[in-house]
Amino acid sequence: MKKNLTLVVLAAGIGKRFWPLSANKTLFPFFGKPLFRFPGQIPGQITNIVIVSDLENADRFRETETPVAKKVVIQPEAAGMADAVLCAKNELSGGSAIILIADDVAQTGLLEQLVAKAASTNASGVLIGWKTPAYFPGGYLRLAGNRVMSIEEKPGAGNEPSPFVNIFAQYIEDADLLLAQLSRTRSAADDVYEKALSVLMKTHEFVMLPYDGRFASLKYPWHVLDVMDVLLGELKSYKGKDVVIKDNVILEGPVYIDDGVKIFENTKITGPCYIGKNTIIGNNNIIRHSHIGAGCVTGFNTDIARSYIGDNCWFHGNYIGDSVLEGNVSMGSGARLANLRLDDGEIKGTGRNKLGAMIGTGVRIGVNASIMPGLKIGKDSFIGSGVVLAQDLPDNSFCTAKPVYEITKNKKTASGSRDKFKQKI
Amino acid sequence: MKKNLTLVVLAAGIGKRFWPLSANKTLFPFFGKPLFRFPGQIPGQITNIVIVSDLENADRFRETETPVAKKVVIQPEAAGMADAVLCAKNELSGGSAIILIADDVAQTGLLEQLVAKAASTNASGVLIGWKTPAYFPGGYLRLAGNRVMSIEEKPGAGNEPSPFVNIFAQYIEDADLLLAQLSRTRSAADDVYEKALSVLMKTHEFVMLPYDGRFASLKYPWHVLDVMDVLLGELKSYKGKDVVIKDNVILEGPVYIDDGVKIFENTKITGPCYIGKNTIIGNNNIIRHSHIGAGCVTGFNTDIARSYIGDNCWFHGNYIGDSVLEGNVSMGSGARLANLRLDDGEIKGTGRNKLGAMIGTGVRIGVNASIMPGLKIGKDSFIGSGVVLAQDLPDNSFCTAKPVYEITKNKKTASGSRDKFKQKI
Amino acid sequence: MKKNLTLVVLAAGIGKRFWPLSANKTLFPFFGKPLFRFPGQIPGQITNIVIVSDLENADRFRETETPVAKKVVIQPEAAGMADAVLCAKNELSGGSAIILIADDVAQTGLLEQLVAKAASTNASGVLIGWKTPAYFPGGYLRLAGNRVMSIEEKPGAGNEPSPFVNIFAQYIEDADLLLAQLSRTRSAADDVYEKALSVLMKTHEFVMLPYDGRFASLKYPWHVLDVMDVLLGELKSYKGKDVVIKDNVILEGPVYIDDGVKIFENTKITGPCYIGKNTIIGNNNIIRHSHIGAGCVTGFNTDIARSYIGDNCWFHGNYIGDSVLEGNVSMGSGARLANLRLDDGEIKGTGRNKLGAMIGTGVRIGVNASIMPGLKIGKDSFIGSGVVLAQDLPDNSFCTAKPVYEITKNKKTASGSRDKFKQKI
Repeated sequence: MKKNLTLVVLAAGIGKRFWPLSANKTLFPFFGKPLFRFPGQIPGQITNIVIVSDLENADRFRETETPVAKKVVIQPEAAGMADAVLCAKNELSGGSAIILIADDVAQTGLLEQLVAKAASTNASGVLIGWKTPAYFPGGYLRLAGNRVMSIEEKPGAGNEPSPFVNIFAQYIEDADLLLAQLSRTRSAADDVYEKALSVLMKTHEFVMLPYDGRFASLKYPWHVLDVMDVLLGELKSYKGKDVVIKDNVILEGPVYIDDGVKIFENTKITGPCYIGKNTIIGNNNIIRHSHIGAGCVTGFNTDIARSYIGDNCWFHGNYIGDSVLEGNVSMGSGARLANLRLDDGEIKGTGRNKLGAMIGTGVRIGVNASIMPGLKIGKDSFIGSGVVLAQDLPDNSFCTAKPVYEITKNKKTASGSRDKFKQKI
Repeated sequence: MKKNLTLVVLAAGIGKRFWPLSANKTLFPFFGKPLFRFPGQIPGQITNIVIVSDLENADRFRETETPVAKKVVIQPEAAGMADAVLCAKNELSGGSAIILIADDVAQTGLLEQLVAKAASTNASGVLIGWKTPAYFPGGYLRLAGNRVMSIEEKPGAGNEPSPFVNIFAQYIEDADLLLAQLSRTRSAADDVYEKALSVLMKTHEFVMLPYDGRFASLKYPWHVLDVMDVLLGELKSYKGKDVVIKDNVILEGPVYIDDGVKIFENTKITGPCYIGKNTIIGNNNIIRHSHIGAGCVTGFNTDIARSYIGDNCWFHGNYIGDSVLEGNVSMGSGARLANLRLDDGEIKGTGRNKLGAMIGTGVRIGVNASIMPGLKIGKDSFIGSGVVLAQDLPDNSFCTAKPVYEITKNKKTASGSRDKFKQKI
Repeated sequence: MKKNLTLVVLAAGIGKRFWPLSANKTLFPFFGKPLFRFPGQIPGQITNIVIVSDLENADRFRETETPVAKKVVIQPEAAGMADAVLCAKNELSGGSAIILIADDVAQTGLLEQLVAKAASTNASGVLIGWKTPAYFPGGYLRLAGNRVMSIEEKPGAGNEPSPFVNIFAQYIEDADLLLAQLSRTRSAADDVYEKALSVLMKTHEFVMLPYDGRFASLKYPWHVLDVMDVLLGELKSYKGKDVVIKDNVILEGPVYIDDGVKIFENTKITGPCYIGKNTIIGNNNIIRHSHIGAGCVTGFNTDIARSYIGDNCWFHGNYIGDSVLEGNVSMGSGARLANLRLDDGEIKGTGRNKLGAMIGTGVRIGVNASIMPGLKIGKDSFIGSGVVLAQDLPDNSFCTAKPVYEITKNKKTASGSRDKFKQKI
């Protein structure tokens, strides 16, 4: 390891695939902090941090406090990972580097392990190899013992050279070597970075740090649930200041309750669950395995399961299953986010059987509305009462039910009292 | 004050503006008694009560017990307040009078205060001046010190001669003076009474009794909620005979529970709330700041907030917010009365942002029906299951959902067991 | 009584009237056992059992254990009761017989009483006479004292020769006498058996065993509820092995909880109720007077009243009233089975005012769907979210809501926070 070890946080890139959620994935908040803050503790060997940002979000990265001096550099266009690293050229030159993919999420400690491995090896580079439980569309490592010979992008199920995929971060002993190779490498596909590393591997030793923990990569909006799972897996019970918990509230498993939270009677929270600041969990709720942001009100009789809820959401007698609500979403009484097809089949293109809605900010949903599984609803859209929504909605949509009823003269009269039914209950 | 002090209760008038609720507003029941019974204790100085009624409802006034001898006189047509007072001419002549507007509701004690003021003043009349918190469409008092110089009807916001509005009741030392002036005064608008008083004020001293308590005037059906607020503001906790309260029932704040009421498990009632005789509050309910009449059954899992519910209503898994149900209304499971527009905007013409439905007697609403905010539903109407109602319904309407579905051959089969999902909860 | 007393269980017959439930009514399961197992304890005097089955289901009868040696004989076609008894000719000849109608359900002990009566009488036959509480479409007994003179099929209300109807089982001292008469009797209607008995009554003494207990006959699918009522009437509280009952679960009245059942918090079960093996009753449920099969999951906030639920059903925030679900039925959150017309009128052709849906196996129902009272839904049908179903569905139907909404550009924006509403709750 050279004297200077720089952590390059690749956080640029406006992800169109992430719609209807806000563009920069690495700023998506979990537990009140943007995602890029979650690599864990910064090891002492790291002397500089460089964040590569897109132009729009650079200020937000600048505002975020980091334990080590940081610099924010701009990647003018979303031109891939190699280009992003080259944007940090001036900051990297002459030292060692760890290239961190900020929308890759692993268990806490993995960055520390990588630094420790870097400190103890004579190799020119260290790659983390995630042992995939099933085929994963990433860069698989071709290995010779523990030495990495090349990275093979998306080989297809059955053609994997090993079970290990390149994820999260790479350590490069000589940053200049990497920068030079990145400048030279050309590819028609979006794999310049991996190709450049593979070229270096022919002449230099790269070794693998194996990892078989939880991992998620934030590309599509439903991946928010995967990232949430990784992060919830480390959650510990906590109770902040000015928390009010009423009678007959059942907390099971790890539940993080931030300051000012109120939880009303006859409600159960099954952890792991995060409840953000000043959120009100209403009466007779059930909340399971979910992230609830700050300033929310869940109202009476709401059921939230395996879902990400951002800040300032309002509910009331809703079912929200396997869904992602970015924030400032309100649902009228009886509105439901369906999360399972009638035939239990895959929600198209997601690899998931259970998936509810993915909803941008500023959305309002009327009473008794039904949103079909796997739909995406653009920000600032309104969905009327009783709508049975069966398609994605672009941003700023106004979707209302047509009046499909007939009004005629009523020829019948209701009985004045229904006391006859009282006995039968 | 002359020897005879007569209280004239102006209770005539079939209010079309009060539709879909029953015509005579002053008979609208609160806490099991008609509204006109709520001026509070009748002070001892009052020797006679005259109720001015329309023809249709005269018997109902005659039947109501009063602590002082009363006479009911008929106003043949809804010809305004001056005409109503003149209908009581024979009963008033030779004495003093308090003219009470029976659909004006103030805190208990205001009538006593007016009588005490009348007894202690040398003035020819006393008007109550309600200090309005915001512009109110009533008769504003032009003052010189504490002397009332004239009444100015609906001057428009910004043009008020003072913050005080003429409400509830007026004391007149010489009833004959008033009667003579009422006979002489002419006006194209419905303000003969106020004009006549203003004429008298030029030659006689009228003083103001200021009032800054709660006040509501019952003109439109949503005003029932305002009147309810005034009356609930004085409610005290009470528990009648033969009341059954099951385990884990939470009562918070003042809750009046009349005889024979049953409240089932896991239900919370947040006062002020009135629960009428023999009403059954079901399991897992939440009832907040509401009036529930006698003989109701709220069923399982009902949520009632800030609403007036009359007698003999049946619910079941409903949401009822900021709504007025006169009585004998039933709602099927999952039917909801929406009370907030998607844009949080004003419910047209009401000055309210939160307003549910206003529903006459004998109405039936099917399962999963959705009633949009601020709608009026005429008596004896039926609304079918699943209807998303977006318009008022006249009396005796029959409104049913058209069948908007397709039936084809099912090519899929459900799995015999869903055990795979059991672990994921 | 002759030496051999054979119990003939008439269990054949594919009942088309029983659709959408599976064909052979006598195999319909209650409490985990097929219906034909419910005549109660087999008295010791019975030496043989003969089950008359249709061809399709014979193996299922053969597989069922009985306390006495049994034989299964086949009735090739659904050719009526007389034909069914004649199918057992070889097994009956030379002895006495009790002819048991396997889809007639009475209280436990009635078979024992019949055998005891048979043992103590000199009469040639004993008929049970059920004292009908109201007109019942069956065979009424014309009596002379306690002697039965004839059976009069469906005489019409007001024309009953006595209040007693022939139900459940008949004892015949000389089976050969019956068999001979059955062979000789002809009728255009489906009453050969009753006519044959009536002929024998002219020359032989038949006496009545009166019965005024609970009784139900399983002909139409809604009769499952009547049979359930009879059987639930005898239910006793029981708690099996490995049962988990969480905090604040209220059990009232007789509740039978089979092995492996889990009941979650804030749920009330009002007996009589049967809960089958390994079923999970979720949080905040209410279950009243119902049969829930094995392997079910009721989810959060489900309300089941007076209903029969078979095995492997999944619910979630549903209302299920007065309904019959054969098994493997799933309902999405907020789906409701309506059980009462808006005018409280009779559900056509059933004699019931309260009746929900009758649903075959393998049915899936989407979120917020509404099923109108008294509908029949054929097996393996899917019903989409938000459908307001107003007609029966044949087997294998796919019924989905048409998209009845409009999408335009939204001109409004939701406020970022709804904190202004927090104070008003």
